[in-house]
Amino acid sequence: MPSAWTQLPTVADLGEQAVLERILPLLTPGRGVHIGPGDDAAVVTWTGDSLVTTMDLMVEGPDFRVEWSTGFDVGWKAMASNLADVAAMGAAPKGVIIGLAMPDTMGISAVEDIARGVSAGLESMAPGCGVWGGDLSSASVVMLSVTVVGDMEGRGPVTRSGATPGDVVAHAGHLGLSSRGLAELLDPGANPALLRETSDAVMWHLRPTPPLHLGPLAALAGATAMMDVSDGLLLDARRMAKASGVSMDFDSGAIPDHHALTGGEDHGLLACFPAGFDVPEGFVVVGRVVDGSDRPGVVTINAEVPSEDLGGWDPYRR
Amino acid sequence: MPSAWTQLPTVADLGEQAVLERILPLLTPGRGVHIGPGDDAAVVTWTGDSLVTTMDLMVEGPDFRVEWSTGFDVGWKAMASNLADVAAMGAAPKGVIIGLAMPDTMGISAVEDIARGVSAGLESMAPGCGVWGGDLSSASVVMLSVTVVGDMEGRGPVTRSGATPGDVVAHAGHLGLSSRGLAELLDPGANPALLRETSDAVMWHLRPTPPLHLGPLAALAGATAMMDVSDGLLLDARRMAKASGVSMDFDSGAIPDHHALTGGEDHGLLACFPAGFDVPEGFVVVGRVVDGSDRPGVVTINAEVPSEDLGGWDPYRR
Repeated sequence: MPSAWTQLPTVADLGEQAVLERILPLLTPGRGVHIGPGDDAAVVTWTGDSLVTTMDLMVEGPDFRVEWSTGFDVGWKAMASNLADVAAMGAAPKGVIIGLAMPDTMGISAVEDIARGVSAGLESMAPGCGVWGGDLSSASVVMLSVTVVGDMEGRGPVTRSGATPGDVVAHAGHLGLSSRGLAELLDPGANPALLRETSDAVMWHLRPTPPLHLGPLAALAGATAMMDVSDGLLLDARRMAKASGVSMDFDSGAIPDHHALTGGEDHGLLACFPAGFDVPEGFVVVGRVVDGSDRPGVVTINAEVPSEDLGGWDPYRR
Repeated sequence: MPSAWTQLPTVADLGEQAVLERILPLLTPGRGVHIGPGDDAAVVTWTGDSLVTTMDLMVEGPDFRVEWSTGFDVGWKAMASNLADVAAMGAAPKGVIIGLAMPDTMGISAVEDIARGVSAGLESMAPGCGVWGGDLSSASVVMLSVTVVGDMEGRGPVTRSGATPGDVVAHAGHLGLSSRGLAELLDPGANPALLRETSDAVMWHLRPTPPLHLGPLAALAGATAMMDVSDGLLLDARRMAKASGVSMDFDSGAIPDHHALTGGEDHGLLACFPAGFDVPEGFVVVGRVVDGSDRPGVVTINAEVPSEDLGGWDPYRR
């Protein structure tokens, strides 16, 4: 691990209890928390009549690299990717539960940096949502497990399966920016420290800030289907189209390059709205839902199937 | 990894979607689940006025060994350790969210075995509690992240900090049995396959079944403090005593050997009850709470401080 991640003292020098005492004060507390971190479980007052839950694992190697990312970046990005799944149901995130496994050579300052990134990400993308609890463990690589609990707040959940022929398809956020940043970092001559200063795409890849407040707004505006784009527009749109039993046709103008088509990790919101509705401000129309009873799940661009079999992200196939 | 964990086809042969299609039917569904696994997030009907959440990471190496454990064992034990934290608040578990990171050389049959262990563990220790969702990822070792959501069902939460001088200290479950099983497995001449057939301690270490239904009963019976014993009686009792600002004195008869004193992973329930109350059936009185204003957190056995500095489990210090 690079030196920023192993600065002394290490977590082994301190032991679990001292690590907890250092990081707990850095974590944004949740609202309505009756019993917070420190006991066997957290107890939170709940007034909603539904719960929304999602979880995501971020593993050093496939999901992030300590050579490029600071702890702050990793904490922030873990919030972005998980909060996006809650927003994509039209729900409001209320609390997160975080597991961190790490080598015992990791420096406490890197752990504190992750905690600061978690809190800053929550305050930016989900004000009012706090950390309810978590767990620490030991592993040869850094792994972050994040579970988010959200509340529909009386709205109906917006699934992936409600897209209807005639709907417009709209997107809020960036398409391909994270992938462009990743490509810059992967360039053999890249200087990651310099790119952090000079490239918006690189900083977006490391620390994305999707417009997640638009998720509940889209639900209120009558979205028929919604998901966040985490594995690339093509793969995720195919999933939505398949779940809905429809096809989707995208405008080539909305997809300037292969990054926009297949690049993941932007965590913007892809939503369908009935034709004739105004899409909420922040969404851009990028295509339309077409009848797909003969070929559900097919995604075209200007009515043509993309010529190559461009895939998307699969953790077991690279 | 041993052959039972790498039997073909591997998860890389199948890809993420096919892996999900194989394991989702094996997972016990939750009650009141409006939208289950497959969308961005799960949506569950909730009628309680509080939420209880806890999470735990289980990492191959520090937490389990694929040489000894089957996938079924790992899935089962992950349920035991997490459900115990919910039970120790006096709550009833309602749903679990599971993350699984694994090498892409892992066989789908081992993944299915984990799923079967999860479901069997839930059906045994938390009937009515199901799997709400989760995530799959890739890592060089197997890591399981489990978050449980529970409901206080109108009971008051039983924390670690309510123990009061004069209370009796009681325990439900086994003390040291898991540690005895671990010692048998660690013996240089051990034959793990044979020990699975012949040793109750080994099977308890691999697949513990703590009496978790007693958690809500203890809460109703007036328990003043409760926690599950995951890191050893001595360390966990010290934590409870420190949180409560008291000392605790144990009866030596209740602690036959060092396994019972410092061995973890039995996940029994340690609870305090006001003197004169009947402790609920299933609990055994093992000591009493004494004034500790001059030395909070001190734990003695027959009024003597244990002679050695016997520790307990710390993931960063071994």
